[in-house]
Amino acid sequence: MVMSDIEIAREAKMKPIMEIGDKLGIPAESLQPYGHTKAKIDLDYIKSLKDKPDGKLVLVTGINPTAAGEGKTTTSVGLGDALNRIGKNAIICLREPSLGPCFGMKGGAAGGGYAQVVPMEDINLHFTGDFHAIAAANNLLAAMIDNHIYWGNKLGIDERRVSWKRCLDMNDRALRQIANSLGGVANGFPREDGFDIVVASEVMAIFCLSTDLEDMKRRLGNIIVAYTRERKPVYAREIDANGAMTVLLRDALAPNLVQTLENNPAFIHGGPFANIAHGCNSVMATKTALKLGDYVVTEAGFGADLGAEKFFDIKCRKAGLKPAAAVIVGTVRALKMHGGVSKDDLGTENIAAVVKGTSNIKRHVVNTKKFGVPVVVALNRFITDTDAEVEAIRKELASEGVEAIVCTHWADGSAGTEALANKVVELVEGGSADFKPLYDENLGLLQKVEAIAKNIYDAAGVTADQKVLNQIKDFEALGAGKFPVCIAKTQYSFSTDPNAKGAPSGHTLPIREVRLSNGAEFIVAVCGDIMTMPGLPRVPAAEKITLNDQDQIEGLF
Amino acid sequence: MVMSDIEIAREAKMKPIMEIGDKLGIPAESLQPYGHTKAKIDLDYIKSLKDKPDGKLVLVTGINPTAAGEGKTTTSVGLGDALNRIGKNAIICLREPSLGPCFGMKGGAAGGGYAQVVPMEDINLHFTGDFHAIAAANNLLAAMIDNHIYWGNKLGIDERRVSWKRCLDMNDRALRQIANSLGGVANGFPREDGFDIVVASEVMAIFCLSTDLEDMKRRLGNIIVAYTRERKPVYAREIDANGAMTVLLRDALAPNLVQTLENNPAFIHGGPFANIAHGCNSVMATKTALKLGDYVVTEAGFGADLGAEKFFDIKCRKAGLKPAAAVIVGTVRALKMHGGVSKDDLGTENIAAVVKGTSNIKRHVVNTKKFGVPVVVALNRFITDTDAEVEAIRKELASEGVEAIVCTHWADGSAGTEALANKVVELVEGGSADFKPLYDENLGLLQKVEAIAKNIYDAAGVTADQKVLNQIKDFEALGAGKFPVCIAKTQYSFSTDPNAKGAPSGHTLPIREVRLSNGAEFIVAVCGDIMTMPGLPRVPAAEKITLNDQDQIEGLF
Repeated sequence: MVMSDIEIAREAKMKPIMEIGDKLGIPAESLQPYGHTKAKIDLDYIKSLKDKPDGKLVLVTGINPTAAGEGKTTTSVGLGDALNRIGKNAIICLREPSLGPCFGMKGGAAGGGYAQVVPMEDINLHFTGDFHAIAAANNLLAAMIDNHIYWGNKLGIDERRVSWKRCLDMNDRALRQIANSLGGVANGFPREDGFDIVVASEVMAIFCLSTDLEDMKRRLGNIIVAYTRERKPVYAREIDANGAMTVLLRDALAPNLVQTLENNPAFIHGGPFANIAHGCNSVMATKTALKLGDYVVTEAGFGADLGAEKFFDIKCRKAGLKPAAAVIVGTVRALKMHGGVSKDDLGTENIAAVVKGTSNIKRHVVNTKKFGVPVVVALNRFITDTDAEVEAIRKELASEGVEAIVCTHWADGSAGTEALANKVVELVEGGSADFKPLYDENLGLLQKVEAIAKNIYDAAGVTADQKVLNQIKDFEALGAGKFPVCIAKTQYSFSTDPNAKGAPSGHTLPIREVRLSNGAEFIVAVCGDIMTMPGLPRVPAAEKITLNDQDQIEGLF
Repeated sequence: MVMSDIEIAREAKMKPIMEIGDKLGIPAESLQPYGHTKAKIDLDYIKSLKDKPDGKLVLVTGINPTAAGEGKTTTSVGLGDALNRIGKNAIICLREPSLGPCFGMKGGAAGGGYAQVVPMEDINLHFTGDFHAIAAANNLLAAMIDNHIYWGNKLGIDERRVSWKRCLDMNDRALRQIANSLGGVANGFPREDGFDIVVASEVMAIFCLSTDLEDMKRRLGNIIVAYTRERKPVYAREIDANGAMTVLLRDALAPNLVQTLENNPAFIHGGPFANIAHGCNSVMATKTALKLGDYVVTEAGFGADLGAEKFFDIKCRKAGLKPAAAVIVGTVRALKMHGGVSKDDLGTENIAAVVKGTSNIKRHVVNTKKFGVPVVVALNRFITDTDAEVEAIRKELASEGVEAIVCTHWADGSAGTEALANKVVELVEGGSADFKPLYDENLGLLQKVEAIAKNIYDAAGVTADQKVLNQIKDFEALGAGKFPVCIAKTQYSFSTDPNAKGAPSGHTLPIREVRLSNGAEFIVAVCGDIMTMPGLPRVPAAEKITLNDQDQIEGLF
C-alpha cells in the first residue's frame, strides 16, 4: 500500500531544529525557535557571515506545467537530500506556501512522498507568521493612505487614482473589487478599491528582494501608492508609512529553517507570485544559505520560460547571485501531453508523442544555456512510465548535448536522486558556468520585453497599443527605465495561448498593460489574464478540513 | 531622570522561557517556544492537569476610567509580582493587546514602569500570531459564505441578511462599510459588507470562552452567519466551515507564557473587546493557570460595572470559575475627576473633590460584593497625590468597610504592592468568598438586562422599542434565552452618558439594539454607540514608528 504524503510526513523522525542549525554551525542563541522544529535565523548573525565565501547555487526549474504534474519542489528536496547523501553540505531554499489556496483545492506545497519538508502542516498553515506580517504591513499602508485623505489630503491624492490595494491570505473573490468608505462622513471618501491575495502584493515582492532591513525600508518607501490629479506619483515615504511597515516586517525578514524528511536543512522563506512578481524565495534566505552551505538548491515558480528567466534576470541580477548549474524537471507524462496526448490517455505507452513533446523541454534547455548556466534534465519517474519512453527522451536530449537522469525520489528519497546529485556536482565542479543576464539593464523597457519574447518564447515580436507605450514612457520618466521586466503571462505555454503546447514559434506577445512595482524595482508587463485574488471552487477543500480524534489535521493534503 | 516604559523594558533581564515554565513544573517538551522568551503551553499537557486542585482566582478591576488613567494592568502585574515576593506561587493572566491601535495613539498594553510584562514589543506586535489566526478563521468563514452563494446558494441565504463580517487587526475606517463582489459575474453578487477589528469579532469571543478544541469547534459551528428570506438562521456548520476554522485556531488556542520584569510567569492569551464582548483573557489560560499556580491574578476590561460584571456573569458562570477576591483599582487623580475636577487642574490638592469622587469607587465596591466576592481597593499612587488626599479616600472607604491600600509598583515594582498582596492573601485565606452570578440564567433576556441596570448601574429601569423587544423574542425562540447578556455601553459612567461621572442614579438604560453571538453564547445589548472598527487619528503613531540604528523599535510606546 502506498502511503499518502501526510501519512509519510506524520511518521517523520524530525530532529530538534537546534540540532539542524548546529549542523550548519549556527549557534543556538542565533536561532529563534518557533516550536521545536522551526526556527528563524537572527539577522545579526547573518550580518556576521558577510566575509565567508559563498557556496554554489543550483536552480531547479521545469518544463511548461501541464495537468499531469512535474514535481519541481519534490525534485528540489530530493536533490538537496541526495547532495547531502553523497557528502556535500547542501541546503534547500524554497518558497513559503500561501494559506488561502489550501482551503480551495486540496493539496499542500511542501514536496511529496519521501521528498518533503516538515513539519508540513505548520509550513502550509501559519508557519512562522511571515505572510500575516506582510498582510499587516500592506494593510497599514492602505489604512494610512485613506487616513491621509480623511484628515485633509495635504498631498492632494486623487481618490480615483489610489493604486495601492489591500490584501488578505485567503481565496476570496468577493473582495476582488469593492467600494470602500461607505456609510457617511465619518468613514471617509467613498472610492473603488480591492484586495489581492498576500502573495500577489508588492510588499511580498519587496520582502523577497530586500538584502537587509535598511534596503527593505528604502524599497517600502519607494512604493507608489497613488497619483495626484496632475498625475504626480505619491510615494509611501511621503505618508511616513515605511518605518512602521519595516517594524511590522522586522522579525519576518529573518529566514526560516526547517528540515527535510531526511533531516537535512531547508530554508523556506518568502513566496511571491510567479506571474505578477518574480516567483522565487527570498534573497535573504538564498544569500544566507550560500554562506552556510557548499551547495544551495533553489527553485523558481512555473516553467523555465517564466520562472528561470525571472530568477536570472531579476533575482540573480539584482542580488549579485551567480548560479552554477540548473536542473530542468520534466516527466514522461507531461511531455506526452506536450506531444498532444490528453490526460485520460497518459497511461498508454506512446513513444511518438513523447518524442514530439520533448520540443518543449529542449527549448527550455537551450534557453537556460543562454544565461551561461550548464544544464541537466531530471526525469521525475512515475510508475506508469515505460522504459522505452524514458529512453526516447534521453536520446532526444542527448542530441541536444544534455543528459536526462531518471529520478525516483518520491518513492525512494535521496537514493532516487543520487545520480542527479552526482551529475550536478560534475557540472558545478566542471566550472563551465559563466552567468549573465539575458538583457542589458540600459535597454529600453519595451526592448527588454522584446529580448525575452524573442530569445525565450521564440516569438516574432511584441505588440502594445499607444496607451501602453505612453505608460512605458511615463515609467521611464519616473526613473524606472533601468528596472528589469517581469512578464505576467500563462505558464502553460511559451506563447500567450495556454493550449499551445510543445514549442510554438513565430507568435506575437501582446502587452496588454504595464504596472510599475517601484519598491520591488521591476516593471510588470501583463500579457494575458492575471488573477491576483483567486476564488474558492464549488466544493472547497475547507469543507473537509478538520481535526480528527487525536487533534491531527485531516483533509489538508 | 525617570526612564520610559520602553527603556525599562529594554533593560529587563529576561530569563529563558523554559526556565519560567520549569518553575511552574511544565516539562520543556510541553512548551512550544516562540523565540527564547515566549512559549505556548501544549493542549495535551493542559489536559493532563485536569485532576489537580485549583488555585485561588483574584480579579483586578477598576473604577470608571477617566482621562487621568488608573493602571489596572500595571496593578495586576504589580500584585502578581508581590504575591510571588511574599512566597506565593502566583501567575498573572492578561489579555493580548490588539495590533491595530498601536499605530493610532501612541501606547502599548503590557503594563508600565517597573510593573510590566516582557518582551513588550513582541507582545504588542504579532506576539505568537493568535490574532492573525483568529482573523484568518473569521475571514475563511466569510469567504465560504460568499462562495456558497456564488455556486448556487443551496441554503437560500438572503444576500441582504448576511450578518457575518470580515475582520482585520488594523484601525481602518475605510473598511467599516463597503460594497463587495463588484466588477461583474465572476466576482459574485454585490452586497453590503464591512470589516470589524479582530478583537470585536465573535471568533475572538468564542476563542476566549472555549474550554477545549472540541468546545471551540462546536461553538464555531453555532455561529449564525446569515438569514434566509424566510428569516431562518443559517449556521456556520451548515456551510461546513467550523472544521477548517478550528484547524486554523488549533495552535493559537494554547495559552501563551511570558514573564514579568521580575521574572514571574504571566499568561497573555485572547483579547476580546469589553463592549461588544466580555473583555477577559481566555478561559483556557485562566483555567490552566489555576492548575499551575496557587494564586492567579487576572483583569477585566473597562470599569467594574462592565468588566467585573461580565467577568462574573459571563466568564466565571460559563467556565465554572469561583473568584476568591477582587481588587478595585483607583487613583487620586481619577477620583478627583469623578469629583468634578478637570484634567488640567489635577495637580492641585482638592480634598473635597476627592471625597466627592469616591462615590464612584464606593459603588463599585458595593456592586462587587453583590457577587459574593470580598474586596480591597488599590490606590495606584502618582507623584502629585498628597497624603491628605490619600487619607481622605482611605477614610471614606473605611466607612464602607473596605481597606484602601496605596501601591507604588510603577516606581517600585513588587515592593510597592507588597501590602496589597498581603491583604489579598488575608481576604482569600479568610475564605469569605461565596461567588454567585448576579442573575439566574432562567430569567428572560430583558429581565437580565434589567437586573444589571438596577443592581449595578443603579438605573431606574430599561427601555427598548418594539423592534428590539421582537428581536429578543426571536432570540429566545432560537434557544438563546438562557444565554447571559453582554452590555455594550460607555465605559466612562454607570449611565449611558459618558459625562455623568461619580455615581449617577435613577437614569434609564435604553437598549438600542440587540445582537446574538450564538457561538460565543451571549446576547449583546447595545446601549450606546459602539465602535467595532476604530480609525486612525490625524497624526497616527505609525508615522513615528521605525527602527533605530540598532534595529530596535522606536515610537511604539
